[in-house]
Amino acid sequence: MGDTLAQKIIKAHLLSGDTAVGSEIGLKIDQTLTQDATGTMAYLEFEAMGVPRVKTERSVAYIDHNTLQSGFENADDHRFIQSVAKKHGIYFSRPGNGICHQVHLERFGKPGKTLIGSDSHTPTGGGIGMLAFGAGGLDVAVAMGGGPYYISMPKMVRITLSGKLRPWVSAKDVILEVLRMLSVKGGVGKIIEYAGEGVKSLTVPERATITNMGAELGATTSIFPSDEVTREFLKAQGREEDWAALSSDEDATYDEEYAIDLSSLRPAAAMPHSPDNVKAVEDIGKIKIDQVCIGSCTNSSYLDLMRVARILKGKTVHPDVSLSIAPGSKQVYNMLAKNGALADIIAAGARVLECACGPCIGMGQSPNSGGVSLRTFNRNFEGRSGTADGKIYLVSPETAAVSAIAGVLTDPRTLGEMVSIDLPEEFLINDNMVLAPAPVEEMDKVEILRGPNIKPFPQSEPLADTIAAKALLKVGDNITTDHIMPAGSKILPYRSNIPYLSQFCFGVCDKEFPARCKEEGKGIVVGGSNYGQGSSREHAALVPLYLGVKAVIAKSFARIHAANLINAGIVPLTFEKDADYDGIDQMDELRLPEIRKAIAEGGEIVVENLTKGTKFPVRCELSKRQREMLLAGGLLNYTKLQAE
Amino acid sequence: MGDTLAQKIIKAHLLSGDTAVGSEIGLKIDQTLTQDATGTMAYLEFEAMGVPRVKTERSVAYIDHNTLQSGFENADDHRFIQSVAKKHGIYFSRPGNGICHQVHLERFGKPGKTLIGSDSHTPTGGGIGMLAFGAGGLDVAVAMGGGPYYISMPKMVRITLSGKLRPWVSAKDVILEVLRMLSVKGGVGKIIEYAGEGVKSLTVPERATITNMGAELGATTSIFPSDEVTREFLKAQGREEDWAALSSDEDATYDEEYAIDLSSLRPAAAMPHSPDNVKAVEDIGKIKIDQVCIGSCTNSSYLDLMRVARILKGKTVHPDVSLSIAPGSKQVYNMLAKNGALADIIAAGARVLECACGPCIGMGQSPNSGGVSLRTFNRNFEGRSGTADGKIYLVSPETAAVSAIAGVLTDPRTLGEMVSIDLPEEFLINDNMVLAPAPVEEMDKVEILRGPNIKPFPQSEPLADTIAAKALLKVGDNITTDHIMPAGSKILPYRSNIPYLSQFCFGVCDKEFPARCKEEGKGIVVGGSNYGQGSSREHAALVPLYLGVKAVIAKSFARIHAANLINAGIVPLTFEKDADYDGIDQMDELRLPEIRKAIAEGGEIVVENLTKGTKFPVRCELSKRQREMLLAGGLLNYTKLQAE
Repeated sequence: MGDTLAQKIIKAHLLSGDTAVGSEIGLKIDQTLTQDATGTMAYLEFEAMGVPRVKTERSVAYIDHNTLQSGFENADDHRFIQSVAKKHGIYFSRPGNGICHQVHLERFGKPGKTLIGSDSHTPTGGGIGMLAFGAGGLDVAVAMGGGPYYISMPKMVRITLSGKLRPWVSAKDVILEVLRMLSVKGGVGKIIEYAGEGVKSLTVPERATITNMGAELGATTSIFPSDEVTREFLKAQGREEDWAALSSDEDATYDEEYAIDLSSLRPAAAMPHSPDNVKAVEDIGKIKIDQVCIGSCTNSSYLDLMRVARILKGKTVHPDVSLSIAPGSKQVYNMLAKNGALADIIAAGARVLECACGPCIGMGQSPNSGGVSLRTFNRNFEGRSGTADGKIYLVSPETAAVSAIAGVLTDPRTLGEMVSIDLPEEFLINDNMVLAPAPVEEMDKVEILRGPNIKPFPQSEPLADTIAAKALLKVGDNITTDHIMPAGSKILPYRSNIPYLSQFCFGVCDKEFPARCKEEGKGIVVGGSNYGQGSSREHAALVPLYLGVKAVIAKSFARIHAANLINAGIVPLTFEKDADYDGIDQMDELRLPEIRKAIAEGGEIVVENLTKGTKFPVRCELSKRQREMLLAGGLLNYTKLQAE
Repeated sequence: MGDTLAQKIIKAHLLSGDTAVGSEIGLKIDQTLTQDATGTMAYLEFEAMGVPRVKTERSVAYIDHNTLQSGFENADDHRFIQSVAKKHGIYFSRPGNGICHQVHLERFGKPGKTLIGSDSHTPTGGGIGMLAFGAGGLDVAVAMGGGPYYISMPKMVRITLSGKLRPWVSAKDVILEVLRMLSVKGGVGKIIEYAGEGVKSLTVPERATITNMGAELGATTSIFPSDEVTREFLKAQGREEDWAALSSDEDATYDEEYAIDLSSLRPAAAMPHSPDNVKAVEDIGKIKIDQVCIGSCTNSSYLDLMRVARILKGKTVHPDVSLSIAPGSKQVYNMLAKNGALADIIAAGARVLECACGPCIGMGQSPNSGGVSLRTFNRNFEGRSGTADGKIYLVSPETAAVSAIAGVLTDPRTLGEMVSIDLPEEFLINDNMVLAPAPVEEMDKVEILRGPNIKPFPQSEPLADTIAAKALLKVGDNITTDHIMPAGSKILPYRSNIPYLSQFCFGVCDKEFPARCKEEGKGIVVGGSNYGQGSSREHAALVPLYLGVKAVIAKSFARIHAANLINAGIVPLTFEKDADYDGIDQMDELRLPEIRKAIAEGGEIVVENLTKGTKFPVRCELSKRQREMLLAGGLLNYTKLQAE
């Protein structure tokens, strides 16, 4: 039985596990990327690992998220990342050079390679046949340190494309159709492979739009074969040598199969407030619009913006519409500035924003209250635009540009003949905004620049033989990660400052908790059932680690938070009998004798309540890898040990 | 005795008063401009006046300040201003069209005309021989309604320029030299006229840089003659017919005279934290820099940015420097995009921002903590950049660009021969982003678009015959406008929402005050000495007006706040005997019998304290114009009456 495209890459990178669907597999990672919003923490974690140089083939740090810079924090973060990158062997893409996924596709991605990135749209790389995953900052740090990336072996899904897109119908309309078919949950635990004759008619930027927005399917990743079209793209980027042919075996088998006739598609829009709430533009009708935003990692390529420029040429943006355009990369921007397309865009009255993520992540250009905004982006969740009652429609660049002129949602096919835009035979190549790292022999000279907002990652220690500490906090059932580590605009700018964040830890439950932790130096948290439900934020474990929390004893844990506790080296223990929860009061002196031995050998664990003079049994169910991680004092220390 | 340039324009526009220095004069205003941060309030005030169409020759509403749009409020404000402009006869410069002063100079300004704008850098228009003043929103509203603009007749100052600027020395260095000579207080109560042979060697954009930053001298305004250079500029803007020759009489006399030999100037910088803290760049030395920002109403013209583009061409921004460039107008931006200069700027790695005020007003691009930032802007006050400990140096575009490449503050003269840039014979003219107002016959059809943040301006009523109300608040001495109406990031986005703002009125002194006002419907405030000191914010009178405050009785008033109270129709009364202050308690019932008659006739005013059964005399010293204003119920009503 043959292999699918994804299975081939997985097998070539398999470090542990077997490839039965659902099994945990460890993959060798060839490339990593970070953006600045998640990157500061990822590099603090990498620093804490103590690995001097990245062990990947290519790691790149991009600055594209926090580019508005409404306070000193962002510029401090950028400088920190720049200095870390220089020291530790990471390429640095300077602010203004563009959106990570667009630039990575242009300049660094390679067919058949694995890539993880601390951004959910990292699967964009699937457009050139990479196996590319969005991942947490700690995962990226570990991969940079040479450690494996662990996932559950996904199901294989094939979407066979036939026919050819009709004029004015674009790649965005393809992925919107997939979202309509499969829904935002349809991709969970699956890799989506695109195949069939229709693939040949799609350029690399078009394929990348489709794999990019596979993130909205919840898919593990999406991938296209690497073919002649891929080779032409890489050649035009001056790196034909990076090309390799890659396709599924004829007799590969799939868990699910779908088919789309490209020639049947019409311009579509995802209506508020979900990317899978998709309808044909002509069926939605000519609703009045207030704003149009073109850009984002989904639709900001040379091809996209040249089409937009042609539509706008000689026209004026409708008086009631604000049109903003953010090119995806300096390469795109520079080419448009050179060939006159940018002059056409400016003449039409577009507001041209810096090359960056911008409004897609709510960084500016919030629409008016109740406003209707057409966006070429990937998410239209309620409030994401910065305007709570904004109504966001996700559309193709063609639909966006045509509508911006008309003032109402408009099917671009009404415009008549489409001027076809070809990809250039040579892109404009100028990597002067990508800084190479210092040579190994000079890395010691590089000073890490830490602004007042950037504090070192909290160090964890190998698991002690015995834990003896007070129950510094006792909470009830259903504690969420928002209880443990609140978010919000007051706290988010401090994501690289764990000491600052720690002031807010459990603030919703007990404002004195951080102070008690500081006084005692160490502690144990006692929780009810479903402890740690909600988001996957790693700060809900890292901040307690900083505050000296050694263990959490609860009736039950939410799965991801338990994993995050283990990653942080905090022992998650479950009451054998729920009733024992009632036998503990806050501030009781607890003792876990020979806990290290029990974790190492999987033995029984008994908690002694010294205050009450009682004892009760607890459980700690762990895989071998997790056991070793806890003994080492968390994932970073574990990875350090593995690397030695 | 002949007249100076400014005296000629003043005499041609004099509606009241005599031109002895210090006398109040009322001027006819030909043109007005607003920007969006002050504009919403100005148009709310204009609406409240009830004048259907502006009576100026040309009024333009610009959107250039709140362009980041981090919430719905900004887009709501923009739409409100757009709809008001359309209805009431005001031209609307759409977001993305550029900075008010740059666009106004290019497309609307006329030699010999008067202009007021709700922005302190309105004197930019002096570069083409306009008499242009920065003014409050209410002043602009009144001028749009046809009312006079009142100032104290300024002193006349002449700065005679001889010689010619040497290569790499620019207009910015001229105004920095003036600031060094005269200081930031040196222009108070004065109009600065530039004269002499040296004037001829300066283009209009260079002259505008100088008059623009005259605001930092504290000058009433600055002005250049209108000559052949002016004619050429207007001709290249397709509006030679707007030109008129304008110069001082040979025998005009000045209150102060200064001379500058242009050929003696060197590239200069205003060091932290004041625009008059000026030194030659070569004397400051090669300090390391973190950021360079080019743009703002001071230095973002075609000429400025072409010079920058030539310097950057083929180079790369230093790895440790973030360079941002915001073109001043769509005209400038479009020309650079067409002639290839923008491609050179992008290729060098500059971060190109939207055409707007941007970082100059702290809207983004805050430097790193403790960072050194060179900026071509006009103010370097502590914290204005958004980074409390940022160190801002104000420099010319040439110094900025050369330093951005070098990574240290660099005298551009070290670069060798300067490529000279000429102004084009024809600018690129495309006013498609300026919307003309609706014709008079269609104005009733225009709906004013009010988002939830935009509330009508509070209406005031003609002064009642008798005021009877409780003393709803009694405060002590030295109450500032920050006590009355606090500012800060929590409150500022609501500057077009007086009802919302009113919740915070006097919050520092007594949080219950707004609730008491609502309950009682009307009230009187009792204050100590120096009541209303501090900033000139008009909200400190408008919000009490909204809350029903009819009179303030105090031991003494700060001058500007007393004027603001009168503008709002609130009667400012002074105790004859300070001891009477002690005789009032908060919530006492007060009565001012026949107050209208007393104000109208300048008679005695007696306050009855009904609660205590006492009486005491108060004073109200007013000019005839102020008396009429109070009787009408404030400046808006007064202007309405005058216009009838």
